[in-house]
Amino acid sequence: MSSRYVVIMAGGKGERFWPQSRLERPKHLLPIVGDEPMLTQTIKRLGEVVPPERVLIITNDEQREAVLEACPMLAPENVVGEPMPRDTAAAAGLAAVLVKHRDPQATFAMLPADHVIHDAAGFQAVVKAAFAAAEQAETLVTIGIQPDQPATGYGYIQREGVAAQAEGRDVFGVKEFKEKPDLKTAQAYLESGNYYWNAGMFFWTVPVIANCFASYTPELWQALQAIEQGLDAGQDLGPLLAEHYPKLQKISVDYAIMEPASQENKVRVVESDFDWDDVGAWPSIARHYPADAKGNVVRGALLTHEAHDNIVVNEKGHLTALVGVDNLIVVQTQDATLIVPRDRAQDVKKLVKQLNEHPEWKHLS
Amino acid sequence: MSSRYVVIMAGGKGERFWPQSRLERPKHLLPIVGDEPMLTQTIKRLGEVVPPERVLIITNDEQREAVLEACPMLAPENVVGEPMPRDTAAAAGLAAVLVKHRDPQATFAMLPADHVIHDAAGFQAVVKAAFAAAEQAETLVTIGIQPDQPATGYGYIQREGVAAQAEGRDVFGVKEFKEKPDLKTAQAYLESGNYYWNAGMFFWTVPVIANCFASYTPELWQALQAIEQGLDAGQDLGPLLAEHYPKLQKISVDYAIMEPASQENKVRVVESDFDWDDVGAWPSIARHYPADAKGNVVRGALLTHEAHDNIVVNEKGHLTALVGVDNLIVVQTQDATLIVPRDRAQDVKKLVKQLNEHPEWKHLS
Repeated sequence: MSSRYVVIMAGGKGERFWPQSRLERPKHLLPIVGDEPMLTQTIKRLGEVVPPERVLIITNDEQREAVLEACPMLAPENVVGEPMPRDTAAAAGLAAVLVKHRDPQATFAMLPADHVIHDAAGFQAVVKAAFAAAEQAETLVTIGIQPDQPATGYGYIQREGVAAQAEGRDVFGVKEFKEKPDLKTAQAYLESGNYYWNAGMFFWTVPVIANCFASYTPELWQALQAIEQGLDAGQDLGPLLAEHYPKLQKISVDYAIMEPASQENKVRVVESDFDWDDVGAWPSIARHYPADAKGNVVRGALLTHEAHDNIVVNEKGHLTALVGVDNLIVVQTQDATLIVPRDRAQDVKKLVKQLNEHPEWKHLS
Repeated sequence: MSSRYVVIMAGGKGERFWPQSRLERPKHLLPIVGDEPMLTQTIKRLGEVVPPERVLIITNDEQREAVLEACPMLAPENVVGEPMPRDTAAAAGLAAVLVKHRDPQATFAMLPADHVIHDAAGFQAVVKAAFAAAEQAETLVTIGIQPDQPATGYGYIQREGVAAQAEGRDVFGVKEFKEKPDLKTAQAYLESGNYYWNAGMFFWTVPVIANCFASYTPELWQALQAIEQGLDAGQDLGPLLAEHYPKLQKISVDYAIMEPASQENKVRVVESDFDWDDVGAWPSIARHYPADAKGNVVRGALLTHEAHDNIVVNEKGHLTALVGVDNLIVVQTQDATLIVPRDRAQDVKKLVKQLNEHPEWKHLS
């Protein structure tokens, strides 16, 4: 068996969790759900399937120190900072180069840094199957999340029939990757039973993904070769990235690789049977914490008088007191407090935009 | 001219300004309106009418240190702490004893500690007239606040015809002190033009008030004599209060003194022509600070997106951010944050009651 790696993509900005999240402290560095940063939980969730020495993180330069602090189990050379964001295809290509440099025959997974999955054992079993599926055929493998509602916020994966078995699980063919649908389309997807949510979890061997990059995005791959050759020549990664990264095309891995590969019948999907939530904004945390008798969900300390269905997050030692208010989100931190109705949480991004326009509050963005 | 004193009553609990106000830091020790504690402003507002050496404060033992800190212009012996609250008649009687001990022929005013009056010159002119009125006839003089709305939260003073002149102002007779009225009655008061709000500002000479106490509340006065005799014998005030204060009858000065005195035609009223606000709760501060273009009133830093008519108070360096909420009061302090609709501010008292029932939050009450 070739060696297995995991590359975690930890590049998000996490505006939607302001004021806890900041430019240099995004969602994956915060314990949005649970008591450890989401990224730390992501690494620990892998258990012994992929040990920390074979876990890499691609983050950005500004967050690199904070990532190292959140992940003391990782060697510093396993945490790579992009000098600037170049979208997910560049990051996946860099991941391929970095893993290839360690083991040209390796298989690796690309995983998001900040999703909530409580069932670690269930997750590990599916991950093992996806690794096996990627190793047994020259295919790109993804994990399909079973939808339980007609969500319009995710891309979808349309499956075909069973193409193989891996670790006792069905491995399905993939007909097409679908963009985020409208509600009607999403309902049709849900009813058909042949669609999964695309959670951005990919598995492939180095030779397979390298071939795909060379075929589908030759220019991007060409540019990445310069980094690979530099590494092979013993050069440091930092200067190589500084020189070559700015030139990389900005394109998503779904669009650059997964879609054309699916058209050539080169993509497979393994079905999730673990819980999954990408906790996209504050309202999501209500799915992970119990509500009190009045429907209030609290992380921290709350006192209420005739207040219902609020979500309250505050710092240790701080008390939030609500009188006669319903359906609010209240997030208190040392230097900023947010108050927004649950159904307007998406507008928090507009606040963060405003922060950037105020010199005196820019430091809070 | 006999010497003039002011005794400021600073005994309030200020629950309605929680979380800024605390049991040991009530409204008069806070800059609820303005940049200094309300009590400090009250002393400074007297200007040279009554200098600090003739200003006494009656507070309670728990607050005495904080009062001294807020009032560095006062000698420590001018700040007296009640060992326990015994209502306003006891405090007025104690004030009479304390002033009498310094000058048996003095005139003194009793003033509340925590009202907002911006027009200091106008206030001083009326205070001078009230002092003069109290000195020129054996009467109890009060300042009547001219009502501008049918308020149901104040007691009223029903005036009679002009009884005298003082410092060029009319001094009216007082027919009756009225309890807080219902709205219909308050409207009738307002329309008649013969009623003032009772703001608890009283002026009298020591001999006159001593006679009133002796006539109307002989038992209370008897008990206070023991304190007076002790002081005259050179005893310390603290032990005297500890011994005699617990025995004093709990009754208000309006009920014990002003009402019976008005029935004997011994009360006069001088009309206010200064601004006045007792700022009873958080919504009141909106009367003293300008609103932004969206109707939000802020003391501190506020960022909004589609939020209107909120009142926000927070600490220096802290940012409150509101999205899509209207008509809320938001008060942030280091250890507690309050959120309540403007029209439910009176329920803050219920929160404070709850605090007292939670051992872990009692320290915030």
